[in-house]
Amino acid sequence: MLHFECDYACGAADVVLRALTETNPEQHCGYGEDALCARARQLILRLCDAPDSHVHFVVGGTQANLTVIAAALRPFEGVLCADTGHINVHETGAIEATGHKVLPLPGTNGKISARQVREAFEAHAADSSFEHMVRPGMVYISHPTEVGTLYTRQELQALSDTCHELGLPLYVDGARLGYGMAAMPEVDLPFLARVCDAFTIGGTKVGLLFGEAIVLRGEELHRFFRYHIKQRGGMLAKGRLLGVQFEAILKNGDYVTLSRNANAYAQQIKQAFVRHGCALFSDTVTNQVFPILPDAVCETLSARYAFSIWQKLDGGQTATRFCTSVTTRREDVEALLQDIDRAFGS
Amino acid sequence: MLHFECDYACGAADVVLRALTETNPEQHCGYGEDALCARARQLILRLCDAPDSHVHFVVGGTQANLTVIAAALRPFEGVLCADTGHINVHETGAIEATGHKVLPLPGTNGKISARQVREAFEAHAADSSFEHMVRPGMVYISHPTEVGTLYTRQELQALSDTCHELGLPLYVDGARLGYGMAAMPEVDLPFLARVCDAFTIGGTKVGLLFGEAIVLRGEELHRFFRYHIKQRGGMLAKGRLLGVQFEAILKNGDYVTLSRNANAYAQQIKQAFVRHGCALFSDTVTNQVFPILPDAVCETLSARYAFSIWQKLDGGQTATRFCTSVTTRREDVEALLQDIDRAFGS
Amino acid sequence: MLHFECDYACGAADVVLRALTETNPEQHCGYGEDALCARARQLILRLCDAPDSHVHFVVGGTQANLTVIAAALRPFEGVLCADTGHINVHETGAIEATGHKVLPLPGTNGKISARQVREAFEAHAADSSFEHMVRPGMVYISHPTEVGTLYTRQELQALSDTCHELGLPLYVDGARLGYGMAAMPEVDLPFLARVCDAFTIGGTKVGLLFGEAIVLRGEELHRFFRYHIKQRGGMLAKGRLLGVQFEAILKNGDYVTLSRNANAYAQQIKQAFVRHGCALFSDTVTNQVFPILPDAVCETLSARYAFSIWQKLDGGQTATRFCTSVTTRREDVEALLQDIDRAFGS
Amino acid sequence: MLHFECDYACGAADVVLRALTETNPEQHCGYGEDALCARARQLILRLCDAPDSHVHFVVGGTQANLTVIAAALRPFEGVLCADTGHINVHETGAIEATGHKVLPLPGTNGKISARQVREAFEAHAADSSFEHMVRPGMVYISHPTEVGTLYTRQELQALSDTCHELGLPLYVDGARLGYGMAAMPEVDLPFLARVCDAFTIGGTKVGLLFGEAIVLRGEELHRFFRYHIKQRGGMLAKGRLLGVQFEAILKNGDYVTLSRNANAYAQQIKQAFVRHGCALFSDTVTNQVFPILPDAVCETLSARYAFSIWQKLDGGQTATRFCTSVTTRREDVEALLQDIDRAFGS
Repeated sequence: MLHFECDYACGAADVVLRALTETNPEQHCGYGEDALCARARQLILRLCDAPDSHVHFVVGGTQANLTVIAAALRPFEGVLCADTGHINVHETGAIEATGHKVLPLPGTNGKISARQVREAFEAHAADSSFEHMVRPGMVYISHPTEVGTLYTRQELQALSDTCHELGLPLYVDGARLGYGMAAMPEVDLPFLARVCDAFTIGGTKVGLLFGEAIVLRGEELHRFFRYHIKQRGGMLAKGRLLGVQFEAILKNGDYVTLSRNANAYAQQIKQAFVRHGCALFSDTVTNQVFPILPDAVCETLSARYAFSIWQKLDGGQTATRFCTSVTTRREDVEALLQDIDRAFGS
Repeated sequence: MLHFECDYACGAADVVLRALTETNPEQHCGYGEDALCARARQLILRLCDAPDSHVHFVVGGTQANLTVIAAALRPFEGVLCADTGHINVHETGAIEATGHKVLPLPGTNGKISARQVREAFEAHAADSSFEHMVRPGMVYISHPTEVGTLYTRQELQALSDTCHELGLPLYVDGARLGYGMAAMPEVDLPFLARVCDAFTIGGTKVGLLFGEAIVLRGEELHRFFRYHIKQRGGMLAKGRLLGVQFEAILKNGDYVTLSRNANAYAQQIKQAFVRHGCALFSDTVTNQVFPILPDAVCETLSARYAFSIWQKLDGGQTATRFCTSVTTRREDVEALLQDIDRAFGS
Repeated sequence: MLHFECDYACGAADVVLRALTETNPEQHCGYGEDALCARARQLILRLCDAPDSHVHFVVGGTQANLTVIAAALRPFEGVLCADTGHINVHETGAIEATGHKVLPLPGTNGKISARQVREAFEAHAADSSFEHMVRPGMVYISHPTEVGTLYTRQELQALSDTCHELGLPLYVDGARLGYGMAAMPEVDLPFLARVCDAFTIGGTKVGLLFGEAIVLRGEELHRFFRYHIKQRGGMLAKGRLLGVQFEAILKNGDYVTLSRNANAYAQQIKQAFVRHGCALFSDTVTNQVFPILPDAVCETLSARYAFSIWQKLDGGQTATRFCTSVTTRREDVEALLQDIDRAFGS
Repeated sequence: MLHFECDYACGAADVVLRALTETNPEQHCGYGEDALCARARQLILRLCDAPDSHVHFVVGGTQANLTVIAAALRPFEGVLCADTGHINVHETGAIEATGHKVLPLPGTNGKISARQVREAFEAHAADSSFEHMVRPGMVYISHPTEVGTLYTRQELQALSDTCHELGLPLYVDGARLGYGMAAMPEVDLPFLARVCDAFTIGGTKVGLLFGEAIVLRGEELHRFFRYHIKQRGGMLAKGRLLGVQFEAILKNGDYVTLSRNANAYAQQIKQAFVRHGCALFSDTVTNQVFPILPDAVCETLSARYAFSIWQKLDGGQTATRFCTSVTTRREDVEALLQDIDRAFGS
């Protein structure tokens, strides 16, 4: 079985595994206070051109999301996000388990707009029963989104301006950030560090064994953030593993270079389906593609390939998702491309 | 600097790193539903001689504790434990953050007794204001304890009998279980699987990069446990990493064999201090030793060795903790032994 | 200013105030364990024809909702309800503050159907990522609903059958139950006690100073319910006040009789608007009516009458809400009726 | 049975019941935004000589405590209090249910000192694992305490100075404040308003049907406090009931005058026991007295009088608690005094 159902089917990228192996015998103090983490944090701040920001590492994306959001909100506040947002749909209520309501807004291609944020905030403020309603307290978006789309620089700037005018921290979940940076270079680390109050640089889906780097602007969220991480169960005893991996993938630009390959593979897969007349459930330029397949093709391909059934549609069609990643092998993509042609009888 | 301040200063034991490297290119599905995790779970159940139990993996100890305890308790219930218990002292209120009070009992050498559990439970039940008080709902102990001591088989059996008579699940935090099994073989996996409702087989402190295996007896806690893990942020995307590591350390008995070495090193260190007339803050047979040092010795050794200051005592003495681990090197121990002699002027 | 904006503008119905005054000098033990509460509980169970159910009293509706829901759900479960449901919209995230997600379904006239419940439950169970999503764990409806509508006996029976087939407790928020029972006698207390796992008999909006009676079927939720009430801050020291009031309003049928008056007044108000050509935002037969008024009429009436602005509509129209209650005075209604005619220039 | 087991055995003081009756027919808007509450808030601020403070009303003490504490703390912070503190012992883990650990300090006569607070705070700050431990984030005391004792003005000033130096809000639970003010006039409302960041003026135990007034200094806690109250289920629909009652008991000084009577009765009871040679479990000058009785006397008296068994002691002795309140009747006290003499055979 060849795996295209997610972007975490393999272990680590070679450069990452090598760094883990090389540093394995070293002795370091625990909990991320070691020299390797310090070096990785410095590197990230340099890449972000944000000397006044701060970096924390956690193991996974749900942990990152729940820790940042619970740290930023007051008890009666909720977090605005797209209805398709990961925190709203796929984290088993992790945000609510910290006491906070997720406030979904109808997304367009997985995205929400500055205007929607403003309207939601102002509708709350204008309601005579405002104290009986959850107050919008921050904004969560993902880039790339759940459906593989990207915010433009203008859209992010507008969100940022609105958020800051309204006093709402803007948090960007960058679980697949590498693929986004590769596909749309204008949204780079310095830009994100400027427009967001907090964002993550995703590692798990971009070639690390695991790990998300959380970048926090200024001192406020940072000040007590390690308490939050520990309390939520996110503090890794051998924290150096996070520093080692992030330094390895970032220091020579592999984070973006390898992501660019993955995007190219994904686009080849997309084009193969489009050539055979398939529509797209969501049209993307990143590492996730969403072809709508005739059920017969779906069944044929599933004999040898793992991919996601995104949504059953009418008329014998199924929206699917194929993912590539930084560890996807060329030969697997080529096999898939041939089998797509074959499945369509050409 | 040579590190004896904790048991997670290095990376992984060789056997573990090798397994991670070998399986790195393999493709597997995510979230612990892969074949490698399945194999590791089978192995653990076989070692536990508990075919009706269930195994789940999480990354860290605080995560394991908060997930098990929050899954087992009703909202108004609390967890009985020793006042020195990790959940009471060193998890930044992670249990309380899930809504539950930790109910500390005065420990003796880090341990609590069946009698204390019964008295606490019965005192609650007998109080006319019982509904105004947190109900004891489960019992948490660690083996080895925070201060390196071990429960005997009799003590554990008595705790188990009392807990089950009172309807309280018994949970054993085995973050350092390997060292315990090496030092006191009578408390082995089959015994624990029989007397506990839940226990962990600690990996992070016993040669893994990270990872705790949670063994749950019967179906009740197991049934929805994956929801709990996901909600608390403990579900690792590349879950196979946990299966790979546990299989590697367990399949040939290294978990105990390597722990035995570590215990032996620790005892050599302890004896060196005792020979020079040092008292012990807690007398242990596992990988943590607690010599009380004259402040001058403490200062001398700290130039080259990292160890923990456990408690400042009167009279120019300091209780300290020296830890070894499965990755401790013989040459480091020998250097320390020599420097201990030197520090005492012999 | 005459108040029609809510159903809690006055103090208590005379019969209730009289009972409070008469029992005021009596000495009773606290926390609802007194003879007056016992008598009221017996009365309610008799009226419900449900000797195996149990009754608890709390002060307010949000308290009742959050206590029942947090007591019934496992940590990873959420509660299905209409998108307009009070717990989703007007309780400042009280349910989420206990750790649980509210799972809104699109309501029709404030109601949800058995079919919607089944589809939501089965969609969850069928999703391959089900453990990454909040599990539907119970169903919340209100009767009358937030927009004054009523479930028919058939609709409630269907919801009950579906819930029980799926293992979901059905909870009915009866904050305005008196008005519902007066308007649709077929949904009476014995019927509710049969079809629901938990429901409230609302007092605050039906002539009490305050108070909601919670009726729990069987033993399971009841067993530890007083712990839950105390933990959530809902246990009244002078609990007898709740027993006294409920007995007073229920023992001679005033709960329904007085509600019937209120409904009649509300319908007179509704008819007055309809006669002048007003459409209705929601057509109801209970104590809340929702006429859509020209803005000019809205402004004229607001000089002397307090009523709710429900929603600003296009075309110079405003959806409004007028409430009556068991303490509404005939003369106030007559004044309003005349002023409605006057406002429309007749 | 004559009730001396608590201070909430009767309904309301006459002056309070009269005010409730007189205002019962009035129409007011809900949720404490009415004119009667506004008047009561003004009165309290005038009595506190604290024009920049703010007043909120809730129904009960547990509600007041959990709402203030959860509003004031960051997620990883806990609240320091005496080990006998109500929040630590008798609120079914209500504070923990909001996510926060209660950090008990050993009390002396139910009190903690400025020095203990400083030591706990500094011990945390000095610990190298501080981020792994709950941070002390505020201080809770009660005045009178759980065992009827009082803080002196000097003790409170010292606590206040220390708290403010350390950045810890000081919160005083005044559930029985009236009895404290009557017994020790130097700790009056203006003093409390100066030294505390938040305190309550208890109503439930001092002649109201129910109600606690929360006084918050400055803007910070006040700003969003109504959201907190609503979220925790503490916002009373007919909020005017709280304003009416507090105004009634406070406006002519009855809060203290009636409390003084209660204290005098309690002291007569205490002296009666002392005259017969009884020791005191806690020596108090307020409305709670704690005589240690021979078991035989205990049994004799319990035939006609309800009082609390505080603690079973060795040697056939029992520590008991007798409470009076603002509604205690002279004739009941006289009966008790005679029966005490009789029980001791004189």
